[in-house]
Amino acid sequence: MCLDFALDAERTRLGAQIDAALAAKTMPAGALAGLTDLARTIALCQGTTTPAVERTALLVFAADHGIVEEGVSAYPAQVTAQMLDNFRAGGAAVNVFARANGIALEVIDAGVGRPTANFARAPAMSEAQAQLLIERGAAHARAAIQRHGAQAIGLGEMGIGNTSSAAALTARLLDLSAAECVGPGTGLDGSRLEHKRSVIEAALVRHADARPPLAALAAMGGSEIAMLVGAIEAAVAQGCVVVIDGYVVTAALLVAWRRRPRVLEGCVFAHRSAEPGHRHALAALGARPLLDLGMRLGEGSGAALAMPLLRAAARLLTEMASFEQAGVSRATDA
Amino acid sequence: MCLDFALDAERTRLGAQIDAALAAKTMPAGALAGLTDLARTIALCQGTTTPAVERTALLVFAADHGIVEEGVSAYPAQVTAQMLDNFRAGGAAVNVFARANGIALEVIDAGVGRPTANFARAPAMSEAQAQLLIERGAAHARAAIQRHGAQAIGLGEMGIGNTSSAAALTARLLDLSAAECVGPGTGLDGSRLEHKRSVIEAALVRHADARPPLAALAAMGGSEIAMLVGAIEAAVAQGCVVVIDGYVVTAALLVAWRRRPRVLEGCVFAHRSAEPGHRHALAALGARPLLDLGMRLGEGSGAALAMPLLRAAARLLTEMASFEQAGVSRATDA
Repeated sequence: MCLDFALDAERTRLGAQIDAALAAKTMPAGALAGLTDLARTIALCQGTTTPAVERTALLVFAADHGIVEEGVSAYPAQVTAQMLDNFRAGGAAVNVFARANGIALEVIDAGVGRPTANFARAPAMSEAQAQLLIERGAAHARAAIQRHGAQAIGLGEMGIGNTSSAAALTARLLDLSAAECVGPGTGLDGSRLEHKRSVIEAALVRHADARPPLAALAAMGGSEIAMLVGAIEAAVAQGCVVVIDGYVVTAALLVAWRRRPRVLEGCVFAHRSAEPGHRHALAALGARPLLDLGMRLGEGSGAALAMPLLRAAARLLTEMASFEQAGVSRATDA
Repeated sequence: MCLDFALDAERTRLGAQIDAALAAKTMPAGALAGLTDLARTIALCQGTTTPAVERTALLVFAADHGIVEEGVSAYPAQVTAQMLDNFRAGGAAVNVFARANGIALEVIDAGVGRPTANFARAPAMSEAQAQLLIERGAAHARAAIQRHGAQAIGLGEMGIGNTSSAAALTARLLDLSAAECVGPGTGLDGSRLEHKRSVIEAALVRHADARPPLAALAAMGGSEIAMLVGAIEAAVAQGCVVVIDGYVVTAALLVAWRRRPRVLEGCVFAHRSAEPGHRHALAALGARPLLDLGMRLGEGSGAALAMPLLRAAARLLTEMASFEQAGVSRATDA
């Protein structure tokens, strides 16, 4: 509590310095709106008025899910392993975007071919397993940040069935209904979407006691989601900005946020997913995503696309001239 | 007409090829939504299933405006010249963003220190002058595209007073009221914003006969806007994608569109400006902008920020694996 108080005072002071630096730049007040907000978030997370997002990494965690047995996905379970190969061969959308934007991409096998238990029938994993995966995710993030000297990391995921976990976690942690949180995932519609809804609804009843974030994660989460929780917490703890991708990564953030609310201070939101539950999660987090292109692919594809906005925003603080430096006149009074 | 018919048939055939190529990529149908649409637009404009946005340029046209005499801007007129110096010294927001994204930046003096006539009292320029500026803008675009081998160009502008021209042109060409089209520009509010509205309202009455696009441009436009019209037309004509920035560049596009409707086929929209009139213009053009960050700076800053999205979208078609290439299973039937 005392530490938080000291941190808050420091943060307030730094925030005022950042605001003053931005206000002196050669542009009308507020003219860059969302991009200036982004610069401020990055600077505060990195603890400096001269932030940088020049070296970046993207971690994609992949795992299989027992819930697929219930027929909740448009794609067969083996697609997780096939896409892992596709990532490693460099042919997936996230590979293309990471290369285009100079982002170091790492793919982590969090449990491909080793599915969690089917959470329609039993807890997906034990709390001890979830805790271990959180720690493994944190270790991966710390190592990747170190290896690449990353000033921001994007997070992504792959796992046939994992929007079912995301929906269940979002419903549980935000006290919403299955209907509000279940969406088409890779492309369900009609009766198959209706079926997915009823599977999640029943699972929420079965795991009604799993209310604390770790308990909810263990009961209805997945291995990649648990590792994402740890990656988010570890990255923010060392002042590395975290770029949250879509619905599944945001569900992991909900778990992290309920464990450590201040984790939000280091997160930026890449995009608004077309998955209907994502808007509820974003609203609960007070998040304003950078992109809104109707995407719903996952993989970290949105985080990879948003990364250049972070680099540009950070450079406002380090490269843009002030009115004084450039000899530009200020606005006249009314 | 015959030529258009042949072009349409070719365009339809190419469109089908692009759609087939995108549908074969390793992702669920529609999962990249707006980004796939962007890839399609770029490919159609470039006339190929293997488009590229690797070499890009950004042209910023700057000019002064006689209308500033009416007190329609929060900033004094000399800021146009001061910002031209700032662009040339590399210190403005658009410089920062262009450098961050590897975009070659060119700043063109379209009439700094040589303001158009005050269109509250007289036509801003003659139609002959407007035509000459259109041709000069086209020549600049062609030369820049050649010089940089640009596969896409962004367009931007600077000119104290030019949101007044943008508002008047938008109102005239879309048959809207001054109230619907006039906004704060660099930061007017209260009675000064009200005054700007009444100035534009009166100007629309004074120039009531200036209805054809060239006549409207001459009566109420500006030198940089006229050059932008030519730059848009010339770039699209050679299959170079044009990234439209904010309100002022969109007003230039309205002029070009009314002259040559097909020009739209080569344009993508960088962002939704906070200037209220911009949403009317975007709606009339059926445009869906890539970014929505509440920005209202101009300079081409939005175009510079959006450019990496074009590069990434084009690479989907050239770098992403197909289901067959990657050995990934397709969705199962319902």
